[in-house]
Amino acid sequence: MSEATHEEATGAAHGAAPVVFFLSDSTGITAETLGNTLLTQFPGHTFERRTIPFITTAVEACRVIEVIDGIAATGPRPIVFSTAVNREIREILSQSKGHFLDLFGTHIGRVEDALHSPASGEPGKAHGVGDAIRYQSRMTAVEYAIEHDDGQSIRALERAELILIAPSRCGKTPTTMYLALQHGILAANFPLVEEDFAQQTLPEPLRPFVRKCFGLTSLPVRLSQIRTERRPDSGYASLAQCSYELRNAEEMYRFNQIPYVNSASMSVEEISATILQRMQLHH
Amino acid sequence: MSEATHEEATGAAHGAAPVVFFLSDSTGITAETLGNTLLTQFPGHTFERRTIPFITTAVEACRVIEVIDGIAATGPRPIVFSTAVNREIREILSQSKGHFLDLFGTHIGRVEDALHSPASGEPGKAHGVGDAIRYQSRMTAVEYAIEHDDGQSIRALERAELILIAPSRCGKTPTTMYLALQHGILAANFPLVEEDFAQQTLPEPLRPFVRKCFGLTSLPVRLSQIRTERRPDSGYASLAQCSYELRNAEEMYRFNQIPYVNSASMSVEEISATILQRMQLHH
Repeated sequence: MSEATHEEATGAAHGAAPVVFFLSDSTGITAETLGNTLLTQFPGHTFERRTIPFITTAVEACRVIEVIDGIAATGPRPIVFSTAVNREIREILSQSKGHFLDLFGTHIGRVEDALHSPASGEPGKAHGVGDAIRYQSRMTAVEYAIEHDDGQSIRALERAELILIAPSRCGKTPTTMYLALQHGILAANFPLVEEDFAQQTLPEPLRPFVRKCFGLTSLPVRLSQIRTERRPDSGYASLAQCSYELRNAEEMYRFNQIPYVNSASMSVEEISATILQRMQLHH
Repeated sequence: MSEATHEEATGAAHGAAPVVFFLSDSTGITAETLGNTLLTQFPGHTFERRTIPFITTAVEACRVIEVIDGIAATGPRPIVFSTAVNREIREILSQSKGHFLDLFGTHIGRVEDALHSPASGEPGKAHGVGDAIRYQSRMTAVEYAIEHDDGQSIRALERAELILIAPSRCGKTPTTMYLALQHGILAANFPLVEEDFAQQTLPEPLRPFVRKCFGLTSLPVRLSQIRTERRPDSGYASLAQCSYELRNAEEMYRFNQIPYVNSASMSVEEISATILQRMQLHH
């Protein structure tokens, strides 16, 4: 295709990035998740993203159409990812002048065939409160994670399903919180500090639970960057200190046969998925 | 269809629930998210779920096929949701004896057309660390949320983008954590207690920030259930106390024109999406 068309389509030229809509009759999380997975396949492009959740009536759907068509009239055709479940809503949304991708409707027929039964047609149950038990377990796990963040409490460590250990700023806290919130896992996290390395041993409170431990490491440069954000020009953030702590942490993991992963180029989601797989923790 | 086929397909009869696979060359989160959205359309059915992330080589893909075919040989055909990006991996996975739903491949062509450019074909960037800035902002937000959980700190409340208020056990903590982790939002949460209701006023530290406040309420029965989990047969968990606190909290929200939502039948995702929409907080 010609460069001109390309620029027109991507807006790369005059910053008119195409508008991407994530539409849903529920939270819009599913539309955002798959939509963004597809968009990340086009790294050269920039997009303006808009999520419109809870589109539950024909009137609301028609208003959304007006917004999309208004944008289509003056710029590149918007890309529209929809996970609307309700057939009427889906049909209205499909009428817009945007590129309409029906992430739900495209697949539901196949699942109906596989199960030999019709879809209920009721939206939003994916992220609905569903069973109160799951809600409870998540709330309990988040509170456990807060109480046991950064070694704050060694109480009830025997209840932990996972104890994440690492030097400061390797990603313990967000990973622990993600595992608690998304998977209801009782996870504590514990910092590795100077004296642990001096003694070359696992922090005393963790020794009974070595089989629950999982280690994080990083790259000295990356860790130094992150620590510099917090304490510029500190010994704590120096490359030498970061190298020293990471080298010793990795030795400690290996010596105690604690599985570990280098989080330097990973997202919280990737670190969490790796831990679930390696520790066989999927609920 | 005949009831027999139905039972055979769903396994409802002899508890042989069909196995559902979520396959990915990345975390598997996208496959789980859309796959579960589709499955929740079949509330009568039960499923055995298996996520296999990080399938990055042909050899691994072939091993997965063997697992699926082994199950297909002895029970109902598994349902296979895949978001594998790599074409070779996708083609191998599509050869299994399960019902194969290619959640990525089905849509990528449309997006290529819309953008007049080819997909990069590189997996996993959706949940990749991407920009270190986003990672930083999430980490900062999670730490802010931990420090400001349940009114523990009123320091730096002026930095908060959102202050979630509610009586105990209405869902403040998991919602705050979800908004921090998934959206990098600086959110504090603050409990409403006896004396606040007595005085009929917003807790003093919050008064300068009333425009940042969002309230949660619940149903007395639901709140009483949740509180009973924590303190059985306590006044705290009694229906009378729950009704009293919720009634007063709602009055306080209305009096101070604080937007609020009833979280009783909502998931953390739904509460969060509602708050983002009402407070215009989407980043």
